[in-house]
Amino acid sequence: MEQVKNYIEKNKKRFLDELFGLIRIPSISSESEHKPDMYKAAEYWKKAMIEAGVDKAEVFETKGNPVTYGEKIIDPKLPTVLVYGHMDVMPVDPLELWETKPFEPVVKDGKIWARGADDDKGQAFMHAKAFELMVKNNILPCNVKFMIEGEEEIGSVNLGDFCKEHKEMLKSDIILVSDTGMIAQDVPSITTGLRGLSFMEVEVTGPNKDLHSGIFGGAVANPANILCKMIASLTDENNHITIPNFYDDVLIVSDEDRKKMSKAPFSLDEYKKALDIDEVCGEKGYSTIERTGIRPSLDVNGIWGGYTGEGAKTVLPAKAYAKISMRLVPNQSNEKISQLFEKHFMKIAPKNVKVKVTALHGGQAYVSPTDMVAYKAAEKAYAEAFGKDAIPTRSGGSIPIISTFEKILGVKSILMGFGLESDAIHSPNENYPLFNFYKGIETITYFYKHYTELMK
Amino acid sequence: MEQVKNYIEKNKKRFLDELFGLIRIPSISSESEHKPDMYKAAEYWKKAMIEAGVDKAEVFETKGNPVTYGEKIIDPKLPTVLVYGHMDVMPVDPLELWETKPFEPVVKDGKIWARGADDDKGQAFMHAKAFELMVKNNILPCNVKFMIEGEEEIGSVNLGDFCKEHKEMLKSDIILVSDTGMIAQDVPSITTGLRGLSFMEVEVTGPNKDLHSGIFGGAVANPANILCKMIASLTDENNHITIPNFYDDVLIVSDEDRKKMSKAPFSLDEYKKALDIDEVCGEKGYSTIERTGIRPSLDVNGIWGGYTGEGAKTVLPAKAYAKISMRLVPNQSNEKISQLFEKHFMKIAPKNVKVKVTALHGGQAYVSPTDMVAYKAAEKAYAEAFGKDAIPTRSGGSIPIISTFEKILGVKSILMGFGLESDAIHSPNENYPLFNFYKGIETITYFYKHYTELMK
Repeated sequence: MEQVKNYIEKNKKRFLDELFGLIRIPSISSESEHKPDMYKAAEYWKKAMIEAGVDKAEVFETKGNPVTYGEKIIDPKLPTVLVYGHMDVMPVDPLELWETKPFEPVVKDGKIWARGADDDKGQAFMHAKAFELMVKNNILPCNVKFMIEGEEEIGSVNLGDFCKEHKEMLKSDIILVSDTGMIAQDVPSITTGLRGLSFMEVEVTGPNKDLHSGIFGGAVANPANILCKMIASLTDENNHITIPNFYDDVLIVSDEDRKKMSKAPFSLDEYKKALDIDEVCGEKGYSTIERTGIRPSLDVNGIWGGYTGEGAKTVLPAKAYAKISMRLVPNQSNEKISQLFEKHFMKIAPKNVKVKVTALHGGQAYVSPTDMVAYKAAEKAYAEAFGKDAIPTRSGGSIPIISTFEKILGVKSILMGFGLESDAIHSPNENYPLFNFYKGIETITYFYKHYTELMK
Repeated sequence: MEQVKNYIEKNKKRFLDELFGLIRIPSISSESEHKPDMYKAAEYWKKAMIEAGVDKAEVFETKGNPVTYGEKIIDPKLPTVLVYGHMDVMPVDPLELWETKPFEPVVKDGKIWARGADDDKGQAFMHAKAFELMVKNNILPCNVKFMIEGEEEIGSVNLGDFCKEHKEMLKSDIILVSDTGMIAQDVPSITTGLRGLSFMEVEVTGPNKDLHSGIFGGAVANPANILCKMIASLTDENNHITIPNFYDDVLIVSDEDRKKMSKAPFSLDEYKKALDIDEVCGEKGYSTIERTGIRPSLDVNGIWGGYTGEGAKTVLPAKAYAKISMRLVPNQSNEKISQLFEKHFMKIAPKNVKVKVTALHGGQAYVSPTDMVAYKAAEKAYAEAFGKDAIPTRSGGSIPIISTFEKILGVKSILMGFGLESDAIHSPNENYPLFNFYKGIETITYFYKHYTELMK
C-alpha cells in the first residue's frame, strides 16, 4: 500500500502531463471534421500503453474510428482483466459558456478543466497509469488487456463487429470500466446498473419552402407548431411516456429493493441548489433517484427550425427538427423501443405535414450482479483506498456497449467509476478533480490484487 | 398611354440596372452588422430621387436606421401624393437553399432573382421610375413626396417618431404604397386590408447548465420538452388560439361579406400543389382565404435549444427558445395582444422552469376603404394598364406602419401591390417578374393622372 501511494506521489506531475497530451487532441467523434484527431488519439494511446509496459499494442481500423488494443500476458493460467475505455469526447458547444478553452487543460481549484477531463480520457487514463505502476513495481498479479475505442459517444457503432472479429484476442475473465460516477469524494460507490438508450432524430416538413407568415399564417400547417404538439403528446400530465407498449418490458422493482435504494445519501435541497431549480420534475410516484435509476425517460436533446437569429423574421418555416432520446431500463430492448417510437411518431403525424424518423444510435441497459467475484474485489479495493465501504448505485447514464460485451464476448463488466456529478460531463466546463484521478489509480491497483486473490 | 409605354420600353434596361445597384446593397435591418449597408441604401435612394427629378432630397437620421426623403412641389394648390416604401430586407438564411446569390441579382425565366427583388426594393423602385417618367415627359399632374425607410422588416421602430417630428413636411392627401401582392399577372387586385402583428420571443430556462441526459433525464425538467408543451397548448384541436380574451376585439365579418370574398379566383388544388402539401391546415369553420384574410393566426417563426449539430449528443439543455408571432385583424390592438400573450405564457409555465417573454415588435391591422378617391383612381389605373377590373382583396401580411400613418399623419394609404405569391418574399429564391416591375411603373403613372383628375 505504501509502495503504491509513494509511486503515485513521485510520478503525479508526469501522469498529469501525459493525460494533458491526450486531452489536447480534440477527438470529437460526432463531428466528421475531427476524423484525423481520432487517429491521433489512437496513436497516443498506443504509445501510452507501450510506455506503461504492454508486450504489444496495435491500432486497429474499423469501418469508423480506430480501436487501440494492447496486452501483457504474464501467465496464461492467471486471470485476465480486459480494460475498456474510450478516447472520443462530446462536442463542446455552446463554446461561449466555457470559462477555459475546452482542449487546453488547466488545473484550477484542485481540478482539471477540459473536455474529456473526466469522460473518458481522465478516467480511462487512470488504468494506463495503474498498469504502469504494477509493472514498474513488479506487483502485476494477472494478465491485462486494453481496448480503447473511438466511438463511445456516438453509440460504439463498430465496436460490436470488432469484438466479433477479435473474440479470441479479447478473451478475458472480467471487463473493467471507469466511465461512470461515484456519489461523493468521501462516499465511494460502485455502479451496478446502467440505463439503455434509444436516440432518435425527427424531421417534420410542411410547405416546400419557407413562407411569409403573414400571407400564409393560419392557412398552412407550420411544421414547428406541429412538432411541438407531437413532442408534447409523447408524455402525459404525470410524465408517463405515452408511446403504446413503451413500458411493456420494464421490470417492476420490488418495494424492498426500492427501500434499500432510498437509503443512499441524497439531499433534494442540495440537488436543486446545485442545478438552480425551484422544483424537480419527473414521473409521478417515483423519487428523484428512482426516476434516473430504475425508470425510463424521454428527453428532447435538441430542437431547431425557422429563424433563430437576432431580431424578428416573420417566416413560416418549411421544416422543423428534433433530437429525442429515451433512457431505458434493464429488459427493455432499445431496438424494439426505437421501432415503437418510429411507429408511434409516424402515426400521430397529421396529414398536412411529412415526417421522417431516424434512429441515430442505441444500446441495452445493463445490470452488474453484486455477487460476482469482481464486485467483491472492487468492494475490497474501495475499502482499502477510501477507508470505507462502497455503496452500490444505479446510474441513469448509458454505456450501450457494456451489454453488447456480455452478448458477444460472454463476459461481465465491473463499473468502477470515479466521476462526480459536478464534473459537468457533456457540458461546458467539464472537470475532474485531481483527488479522484490519483485515488482512482490507487483503487484500481488494489482491485487487481484482490481480484487475482479471490479468483484463486 | 403610348408615351408612357414607349418611355418604359426605351429605358427598361437602365431601370433594371439602377434597381440592381440597390439590390446589391445587403441592407438586412435585423442584423446589426449590416448597419453600414443601411446608410449605403439610404444614399443610393437619395441619388435615385435626385436623378429622377425631385427638387430636394435628404437622408434623415433616426434613433435606428436612416430615412430618405425627397419631394417635388409643382403647385401647393394641387394634391400631394406621399410615396412610402422601404429599403431594408429580410435575412437570407437558410443560405444553402438559394439557387443564386441573394445579393447578386440575375434575370432568369423573365424574373429578377434576389433578396429584395420584390419586397420591397423592386416594388418601391417602380415609384422612382414612374416619377422620373412623369417628370421627363412633363406629365406630372400633382405634387409628390417620397419617404423610404430602413426598418420596415423590424417593425418600423422609429418611423412613428419620424412622422411626429416631420408632420408638416410629410403633409399629403394620400399615401401610396407598393408592398403587397396581386392575385395573378392577369388578375389585378387592390389590397383593402392588412393584418396586424404581435411578434414575441420566449426563453425557457431549466437547470443552470446543460446536463447529461442519462444522469439527469427523467428527474429534471427539460426546458425543450416544456417549451413544446407550452407552445402546443397555445392552440386547440380546432386551431383556435387558447390565450384568454384573444378574440375579444375581433370583428365578425358578415355572411354577406364572406360570400363576396369567396368569389375571388382561388384554386385550393393549385395552392396545395404550389406548396407541395397534401392538406391545408387552419381554424375550423373558415376557408383558406378567410384564414389569412379575416382571422388572426399564431405561428412559431423559429425554435431552438440543445444540440442541433451532426449526430447525437445526449444533453439535457439548460435553455430553449422560440420566436412566436400572431397576425391580428382590424380592431385587435397589437399591444393588448402582446400583453395577453405574455401574461398567459407566464401563467402556463410550470414551476420547475423560469420563463422570459419579450415583445419584439408589432403593429395594428389596417382597412383601406373602397369608397375613397384614391381607391377609385387606383381602379381606373389598373383598368387602363391591365384592360380589366382590379379585385379588392385582404392580405394576410402586415405593414404595421400603415395604421400608424393614419394615427399620426391623419392620412389614409392606398395599397397598390404588384407582387405575386410565387415571389417567395422572406424566403430563399425571392424573385419578381420583369412583367410586374414594368407593368407596375405603367399602372402607377396612370394612378397619378386619375387621382389628380378625381380630386379636382
